[in-house]
Amino acid sequence: MIAKSMKQFTANSSAVRAMFEAGAEMAKEVGAENVYDFSLGNPNVPAPEALKDAITSILKEMPSKQVHGYMSNAGHESVRTKIAEKLNREQGTAFSQNNILMTVGAAGALNVALKTILDPLDEVICIAPYFVEYGAYAANYGGVVKTVPADTENFQINFKALAATITPKTRAVIINSPNNPSGVVYSEESLRSLATLLTEKSAAFGSEIFIIADEPYRDLVYDGVTVPYVTPFYKNTLVCYSWSKSLSLPGERIGYLVVPSEINDYDEMWNAFCVANRVLGFVNAPSLMQLAVGECLDLSCDIAYYDRNRQTLYGFLTAMGYTCVMPQGAFYLWMKAPGGDDKLFCKKAFEEHILMVPGSSFACPGYVRLAYCVDYETILRSEKAFETLIKKY
Amino acid sequence: MIAKSMKQFTANSSAVRAMFEAGAEMAKEVGAENVYDFSLGNPNVPAPEALKDAITSILKEMPSKQVHGYMSNAGHESVRTKIAEKLNREQGTAFSQNNILMTVGAAGALNVALKTILDPLDEVICIAPYFVEYGAYAANYGGVVKTVPADTENFQINFKALAATITPKTRAVIINSPNNPSGVVYSEESLRSLATLLTEKSAAFGSEIFIIADEPYRDLVYDGVTVPYVTPFYKNTLVCYSWSKSLSLPGERIGYLVVPSEINDYDEMWNAFCVANRVLGFVNAPSLMQLAVGECLDLSCDIAYYDRNRQTLYGFLTAMGYTCVMPQGAFYLWMKAPGGDDKLFCKKAFEEHILMVPGSSFACPGYVRLAYCVDYETILRSEKAFETLIKKY
Repeated sequence: MIAKSMKQFTANSSAVRAMFEAGAEMAKEVGAENVYDFSLGNPNVPAPEALKDAITSILKEMPSKQVHGYMSNAGHESVRTKIAEKLNREQGTAFSQNNILMTVGAAGALNVALKTILDPLDEVICIAPYFVEYGAYAANYGGVVKTVPADTENFQINFKALAATITPKTRAVIINSPNNPSGVVYSEESLRSLATLLTEKSAAFGSEIFIIADEPYRDLVYDGVTVPYVTPFYKNTLVCYSWSKSLSLPGERIGYLVVPSEINDYDEMWNAFCVANRVLGFVNAPSLMQLAVGECLDLSCDIAYYDRNRQTLYGFLTAMGYTCVMPQGAFYLWMKAPGGDDKLFCKKAFEEHILMVPGSSFACPGYVRLAYCVDYETILRSEKAFETLIKKY
Repeated sequence: MIAKSMKQFTANSSAVRAMFEAGAEMAKEVGAENVYDFSLGNPNVPAPEALKDAITSILKEMPSKQVHGYMSNAGHESVRTKIAEKLNREQGTAFSQNNILMTVGAAGALNVALKTILDPLDEVICIAPYFVEYGAYAANYGGVVKTVPADTENFQINFKALAATITPKTRAVIINSPNNPSGVVYSEESLRSLATLLTEKSAAFGSEIFIIADEPYRDLVYDGVTVPYVTPFYKNTLVCYSWSKSLSLPGERIGYLVVPSEINDYDEMWNAFCVANRVLGFVNAPSLMQLAVGECLDLSCDIAYYDRNRQTLYGFLTAMGYTCVMPQGAFYLWMKAPGGDDKLFCKKAFEEHILMVPGSSFACPGYVRLAYCVDYETILRSEKAFETLIKKY
């Protein structure tokens, strides 16, 4: 009954979401306090109080049509201008509202970007470990994902493998830093090398290759780490941002796409991105939430909370003998699966009521991802379960 | 630079939107009060006050994670249950939350539906006059729209032409009642005949044909007209609803898709719709707005305001000699273009600062659409301009 072309999507349906549903079931059975659910990146830290105030005063002060009505498909000009100014202030860019397209989250931005640039059988390169939903987004437009195996030394970019993966059909490289699932931030050196490689390859092939920087975790970093902005390194860059994590608003579907003026054929491209936003059915990013985040651009959720989770979890897991990557950003801990079989390890963990996602779901078997955007108490309570678990190895 | 496959979308970019932008430009030049902009279906009537109160109390009373966090891709269970109950009460259906999928507006619902059922070159039938963006939505998934010419007598369905248009490749018929742009409500008789025809044809071809009922105007009707619910007539029916018009929330992107349990392979289909919602990048309908409309299901905007506009506009236009269809629902007046050339007529109207959309943009040349969801004063002020305009004929 469903379309043949839809079957690839349902067959590969998200392991993360499946784990999330299984966790909800288990919680009903054994009680939520006895489930250590590290499966989904659903922020537990509340949105800033100021967001409530912003929403309340927008509703009070602005006319309904301005708050809830249609606007340009690109979004509210006032909000786009404020975002451009913030980026310019912080990143030294020179954006205007004409470089900012408000989207239905970063997932919306990625779909708008890929629809605009992909023809069937065009290739999109993803660097393991990566959020496998990228594959579905590319497939929506007939694109094909080519995976670059992980640099398991530093979880930066395996450039030798990347160079070998680029072909004349390569249309985009998706990068994600701070990275889901590894928690690693790509260094300036990595970005510089990436820019050089793509410039060389596109010249050699007479092609145009985009960097699509998926950056929902940009503002979630620890220990004063800096996340270099990508557009100064490479002109054909598109940046996808979302407030899902920085303001704890994943259900609100609010983000933006950066379309720098330097990209080739900017005018045609900008128009096409706006049309893509409309015809995919987004039409525009949710209006009230655009206005609300516009009032909260300099705020963030309580990152210190995640930092404590990070240090505690990393601390006791490494002390027990687990091998983990110390996260520099995001709220994921990337851990080697004892015994090497990540799926088996997750299965054994499940028996101890620990829910996490196998690295296979991020094109990087042998590891597991723990989303530590959970109550601190859950972290503490999970310690014993992790101890029982490692004794099985 | 943009994908070849994207060019069809930018080439046919919305005439309605273009008119909307032109109107904004003209308003800057000659003053908004001197522009009679009937181009866009952007409700001027405010959202109900109770919606503000609902939002404010949700923000005050519910924990942030519940208000703004991820939920199931299908949406909040509580809201879906309330919607199902309302439909059951009013339409005599027997829905549960498992038949209601919250979407990013009706445009989101249509895209989710079409992605799930269409394979490349599958045919989607649209009945003129219709919102041509349907063509883009179908094309997103390789679908091809076949147009059934209008029944210019009653603007119901031209069944002879429809019967001739159905082929073994027909996968769906999109209907839209109350209709944009004609304002007509499809009668029970029309729906019954449609169901009979599709049942016969799908049996003859061994195919499955869906009715997709796009119903953003269901709750905007006049003179006590009833809009028959489609699912009792035909089992393979999908209904797309949106609060864009009934609560004046078009910018908020909030609606739902009805997936009746009676459709073939319900379980597989339901799962596929949820997956489509996720992989298209919607992920879920905006969370706070789901909860807010859930508190306002029995409310509507001030329909009496539109009714006065409708009667006044219809009254003076017909008195001047224009030929109009008396709208039964929605907020569009469908008018014969004097002289027969709708594009030329719109051009002449533009000179009088009247903005409207040619019927060609709804696959029905010879007519024009006036969106009367505008200030009553605009209606009154436009009278003279319409008089000047008809004197040109």
